[in-house]
Amino acid sequence: MPLSLEDRDRERFAAAPVARLATVRPDGSPHVVPIVFALVDEVVWTGVDAKPKSTVALQRLTNIAAEPRVSLLVDEYDEDWSRLWWVRADGRARVVSDRRDVEEAITALVSKYSQYQEVSLSGPFVRVGVESWRSWASRGRPE
Amino acid sequence: MPLSLEDRDRERFAAAPVARLATVRPDGSPHVVPIVFALVDEVVWTGVDAKPKSTVALQRLTNIAAEPRVSLLVDEYDEDWSRLWWVRADGRARVVSDRRDVEEAITALVSKYSQYQEVSLSGPFVRVGVESWRSWASRGRPE
Repeated sequence: MPLSLEDRDRERFAAAPVARLATVRPDGSPHVVPIVFALVDEVVWTGVDAKPKSTVALQRLTNIAAEPRVSLLVDEYDEDWSRLWWVRADGRARVVSDRRDVEEAITALVSKYSQYQEVSLSGPFVRVGVESWRSWASRGRPE
Repeated sequence: MPLSLEDRDRERFAAAPVARLATVRPDGSPHVVPIVFALVDEVVWTGVDAKPKSTVALQRLTNIAAEPRVSLLVDEYDEDWSRLWWVRADGRARVVSDRRDVEEAITALVSKYSQYQEVSLSGPFVRVGVESWRSWASRGRPE
């Protein structure tokens, strides 16, 4: 049975290796970084891991503490502009530090990314409860 | 003579086919969409074109009218996490509708994207004056 468009968008989003997390800084300006993530039901999980960071106090965490509303984008570029698409999840984020609360996140992230067998996933974690989905595709949809 | 890191980041950004434009909605929440763009000196140009849109009044234009601060991200994902990088440009955007003011934009966009030989670039255009650059790379830098 063919997937509905909605299910297909959901699967495209879930399968993408990278999303872009847009947040708002305390001064009201926007901020955007790429993240690795896992989708579990209506929750997007991402974790701070041992990939080198420019600072320990990540701007994204500071932003979320002050303004929990975030926007997450997955998109695919193609030189054939009839094959472009994107899926966006808007929701509310919170920072979760207690590892007992994030077993689901760790399981999902380690399952999706074999890289986590070598890169330490120390946390904290960010939990985004998705409140709305939006998708777009250029004319027609690639099969 | 080898390029400085800064020049290399700049070239990576300029050469990328797609960036993600983060803006802030009038209600204070973040918004993010993929865009095609051209970098000219310290200006990022993007234009509304004939790729199908969900609405004529694009949310990104509404947002910029109310809050000109924007963030533009180019990133590259690789299964080898030692090869990840991103470059971000933060700046101020304005919507430019008069085609006489955007000859530079049209020239740069048509030069970068051969697709604009077939897709109409009607505008309006968004001009982002870059005020700060930020870049990150995982350990080492891919050659």
